[in-house]
Amino acid sequence: MGIIVQKYGGTSVGDVKRIKNVAKRVKKSVEQGDQIVVVVSAMGDTTDELVGLMNDITDNPPRREMDMILTTGEQVSMALLSTALQELGVASISYTGWQAGIETEPEYGNARIIHIDPKRILHSINEGNVVIVAGFQGMTEDKEIATLGRGGSDTTAVAIAAEIKAERCEINTDVDGVYSTDPRIVSKSRKLTTISHDEMLEMATLGASVLHPRAVEIAKVHGVNLMVKSSFTDAEGTYIKEESDMEKDIVVSGVAYDTDVNKIEVLQMPNEGGMMSDLFEHLANEKINVDMIVLNEHGSRNFNLSFTVGVENGDRTIEALTKKKESLQFQTISLDKKVCKVSIIGAGMITNPGVAAKMFKVLSEQNIPIRLVTTSEIKVSCVIPEERGVEAVRLLHTTFGLDDEDTLQVEV
Amino acid sequence: MGIIVQKYGGTSVGDVKRIKNVAKRVKKSVEQGDQIVVVVSAMGDTTDELVGLMNDITDNPPRREMDMILTTGEQVSMALLSTALQELGVASISYTGWQAGIETEPEYGNARIIHIDPKRILHSINEGNVVIVAGFQGMTEDKEIATLGRGGSDTTAVAIAAEIKAERCEINTDVDGVYSTDPRIVSKSRKLTTISHDEMLEMATLGASVLHPRAVEIAKVHGVNLMVKSSFTDAEGTYIKEESDMEKDIVVSGVAYDTDVNKIEVLQMPNEGGMMSDLFEHLANEKINVDMIVLNEHGSRNFNLSFTVGVENGDRTIEALTKKKESLQFQTISLDKKVCKVSIIGAGMITNPGVAAKMFKVLSEQNIPIRLVTTSEIKVSCVIPEERGVEAVRLLHTTFGLDDEDTLQVEV
Repeated sequence: MGIIVQKYGGTSVGDVKRIKNVAKRVKKSVEQGDQIVVVVSAMGDTTDELVGLMNDITDNPPRREMDMILTTGEQVSMALLSTALQELGVASISYTGWQAGIETEPEYGNARIIHIDPKRILHSINEGNVVIVAGFQGMTEDKEIATLGRGGSDTTAVAIAAEIKAERCEINTDVDGVYSTDPRIVSKSRKLTTISHDEMLEMATLGASVLHPRAVEIAKVHGVNLMVKSSFTDAEGTYIKEESDMEKDIVVSGVAYDTDVNKIEVLQMPNEGGMMSDLFEHLANEKINVDMIVLNEHGSRNFNLSFTVGVENGDRTIEALTKKKESLQFQTISLDKKVCKVSIIGAGMITNPGVAAKMFKVLSEQNIPIRLVTTSEIKVSCVIPEERGVEAVRLLHTTFGLDDEDTLQVEV
Repeated sequence: MGIIVQKYGGTSVGDVKRIKNVAKRVKKSVEQGDQIVVVVSAMGDTTDELVGLMNDITDNPPRREMDMILTTGEQVSMALLSTALQELGVASISYTGWQAGIETEPEYGNARIIHIDPKRILHSINEGNVVIVAGFQGMTEDKEIATLGRGGSDTTAVAIAAEIKAERCEINTDVDGVYSTDPRIVSKSRKLTTISHDEMLEMATLGASVLHPRAVEIAKVHGVNLMVKSSFTDAEGTYIKEESDMEKDIVVSGVAYDTDVNKIEVLQMPNEGGMMSDLFEHLANEKINVDMIVLNEHGSRNFNLSFTVGVENGDRTIEALTKKKESLQFQTISLDKKVCKVSIIGAGMITNPGVAAKMFKVLSEQNIPIRLVTTSEIKVSCVIPEERGVEAVRLLHTTFGLDDEDTLQVEV
């Protein structure tokens, strides 16, 4: 018995029937003696519809007004869910982000949570209510409404769980857990029983879209126990815990695949103090997030630089840097859109230095060219041609013993 | 030059195209040098759609959650209108009810405005913005969202105009002004140039649906100059002023027609202290609004009582009073649903005592039975059989010289 935060995403509350179904699931949790806070997203296509209305007016909607309109989506779903619960005889109350005490930065469209004042949530829980909170939104110090951007509802749920010291935060979604890789690509992919925050962070960042990295980060920092599970079945989900215990000996716990990648190459930039930082500062000012960065010296006075950005930023990056060509003094810049990123992730890698080598070997044996590599303690990522991506994922999944019928570890 | 509050109803902001059109109208006002506050309703059918979602869950939605969901309607339209204005190069900012400082009673679904803190509106006006405010909504002292009920957006507009001492409050709607009677019934009805608050109040209460009586009341108390005009044409509307000047000599300025009426008859109730007030107190507790009340003595110790209620409350009234039959000690109670109310309104009546008699005479000449009469200083209302309503309106409109081609006054 304790407080459990349950997040239901847009698909889970996609229509009235599904909302009623969520209400039944929440009721079951209440009957098990738990106190429940539910964080909801907007219903299914609502967000797209609202964006559509805005786009009928302008191609470039003001961010403040965009947040105004988008936050209505969760306000609708939370009121419906609260009503559905009351209809089942479960006391319930819904709160918008600002009512729930979620204070954010003054950054429309992509605000971070600064602080949560949990008074109202706790008061309502203690009065015996299931508290429904609108995900994805909060209020700035100036009482302006701001949205949290991508993964906002996951972030809301985990941040509330951290603030009220919930026993657990459940991310209820349209998949029943975290898989060793994308089941749509590798039919033999396995559902993981547990995974560490760090591993999940790498999985999430690399395109395993079940849980947003921001949420995992907060969970890691505040030690929130997360669980990813299905909104539709009763199957056990995947626990994301401080330490992945059951599977910690497995070297590679997952293969991630990300097609949302463009590769940029900047050739022959002078190797002078500050030139690199100027470049990335400029991109940061343009709100372009950079992912993998690889630097090679080119002769003694120049270097070549490669990095990846999201597909939506490929052209913008070229444009932004071309404008600065004179001050950055590079020779050429190029964009490769036909790439994808394949990564292997596992906490066990730290103590198994041969893993990366194994990865490169199997890829090269199949003549899959590696365009870019980055490594961390628990992951190795390779940028490869887009059309070889699926093949690479299957190959690595098998190579590292993740296929369902064969959970033996591979020697490395 | 001054501050003008403009209200646009649901039809006026019915779709994106209309919202763009409203933006153009507002822009024109700005270019004339006025500072503009716009109050918007939800787009066209939005409210019905939201209610529909609720009704898919339960026949009896909790009022608090109903307000949660309904208030999203105006939040969507205000963000779209603000965006459309910015797209036209007009600085604009939108505020929800709570952001605009509208404080209401803690009465979900039907809250009255207690107070408006205009700081934020005035600040944004002074920064050069057109301020868009969500109509129909506010926040209670406990930071709960509440709606204002019927006529809520009109009420918001007039209350803001009163608070910020606006030069004028324009109610932009789908008709181009206040007519001497319903133009759908009497083709010769005239658009009034001016009308007094009191006359408008009688017109509005009696079913002239262009402007809600709550809004007119506030306008009257605070001396707000109102104008009802079309959202779609440039025609001059009808001014509602402290004193109707141009037409003040006209005895009857309008004929109102209301089919939203049920008549209740309570026969032979003991003429004892408190019995009447018990009855109406009981109805008030059941939130049943009573309109026309007529009392006759029946012998020395009993009386008969007739009154009207809204059609939605006819059966409920019978039910509520039947339950109390023993304590109220009446003999019989009956309900007549096949009635309507026809009224003549005019500030000039006060000094023309023969007006009521003239009305009764023309009705009786046509054998239209009068079931109930109430009079005030500026109106006479008759309940008559429903099927004779339209005929009676036309008759009275002609009798009192309101037909368009003949504005001569009738002798009384």
